[in-house]
Amino acid sequence: MARERNGLASDRPSRRRDEEVYAAALRLFTEKGYHATSMQDIAAAVGLYKGSLYHYIGGKDELLARVFERGMGSLLDEVEAIVADTSLAASRQLRLILRAHVAAVADNREALTVYLHEFRALAGEALGSVREQRERYRSMVESVVERGVRSGEFGTTDVAIATLGVLGMCNWIVQWYQPGGRLDPRQIADHFAELLLRGLYFDGSTRSPTVSPKERISSDE
Amino acid sequence: MARERNGLASDRPSRRRDEEVYAAALRLFTEKGYHATSMQDIAAAVGLYKGSLYHYIGGKDELLARVFERGMGSLLDEVEAIVADTSLAASRQLRLILRAHVAAVADNREALTVYLHEFRALAGEALGSVREQRERYRSMVESVVERGVRSGEFGTTDVAIATLGVLGMCNWIVQWYQPGGRLDPRQIADHFAELLLRGLYFDGSTRSPTVSPKERISSDE
Repeated sequence: MARERNGLASDRPSRRRDEEVYAAALRLFTEKGYHATSMQDIAAAVGLYKGSLYHYIGGKDELLARVFERGMGSLLDEVEAIVADTSLAASRQLRLILRAHVAAVADNREALTVYLHEFRALAGEALGSVREQRERYRSMVESVVERGVRSGEFGTTDVAIATLGVLGMCNWIVQWYQPGGRLDPRQIADHFAELLLRGLYFDGSTRSPTVSPKERISSDE
Repeated sequence: MARERNGLASDRPSRRRDEEVYAAALRLFTEKGYHATSMQDIAAAVGLYKGSLYHYIGGKDELLARVFERGMGSLLDEVEAIVADTSLAASRQLRLILRAHVAAVADNREALTVYLHEFRALAGEALGSVREQRERYRSMVESVVERGVRSGEFGTTDVAIATLGVLGMCNWIVQWYQPGGRLDPRQIADHFAELLLRGLYFDGSTRSPTVSPKERISSDE
């Protein structure tokens, strides 16, 4: 705890200290909430004086932005690659996006919960990038739905609303998903894909007792 | 501001004062957040001493519970009536539930936003009823999906996950719905119903240019 008492950055790699500050902020935001967490709390958690903490981070709002950007960042990269692969049918792209999305929500429940609780606090300029990421993600998913409609694979009459429905279904799992539950994130994503692609009416008329649920879910892969 | 200076309840009907306290709490929670709002703030907003406020409300957590119960209460009644009317096909029940649900979210955005931001704070015993309402609602929607599967109308292989998908799609609109936008709540609900019942593949093979979006949406009514 004394290693920062001179108020200067230590000789540890600053990247590592950045990580410590980030991890402490995420934990405190999750436990106490964003508003109830002070820069002093974060400093104490990583053994820094509050003044020294400002070597690593501009302020609490910047930490909140980083919490969300981390969770979003890898999902964006993954989905960008899926969208770029136009050898895939739109339905296949959507299935893969759902898997990536549900896995990202399941893996980043704390960060997403903090974001959902605190997005009102995301007013600062430094936080525009969070909204930008979110909008970029939405528009990538929309482009896949649009592509499916253009190719005649999908028949939805409102691409924008269908996209928001898809995103809502996946984002809402942050409210109920528990690790170690009955289904893992991939199984949840595959069920959602069935529901979104074929609808509840799916095989209501052609259902065969010889088709197992598992076969149905992977039926067009 | 002086009318409560004796610390006793006024002779106004206490129901009306209850309403004032509720409205002030909802506004302050929405503007400042639950944690940043004090009982003193709420008392000041309705012209009461803090001590007098406790005649009307047990505490801040009780007000938070009430904010959510109000939004949920009328939706529960409406959906209960839909579920009870077994002359309706499950798909028709689901369409009506979606309309009621989306309208409730659109009408109670502030209350739902506060709830989503603050449900971590809902730890007290007084707040068990909020979770109970939420669970009662979920299980009513699930019973409709289940009924559709039993009757052969629906073909989903996982009633619980399909239900959570339906609820997520509708609840998430709190994140993007703006009054006066391109579609009203009923139109949004009807698009979601199409997506959930028929899926994105809907009429991908049978699409006819003579069927307008409007006709499609109301096609089984």
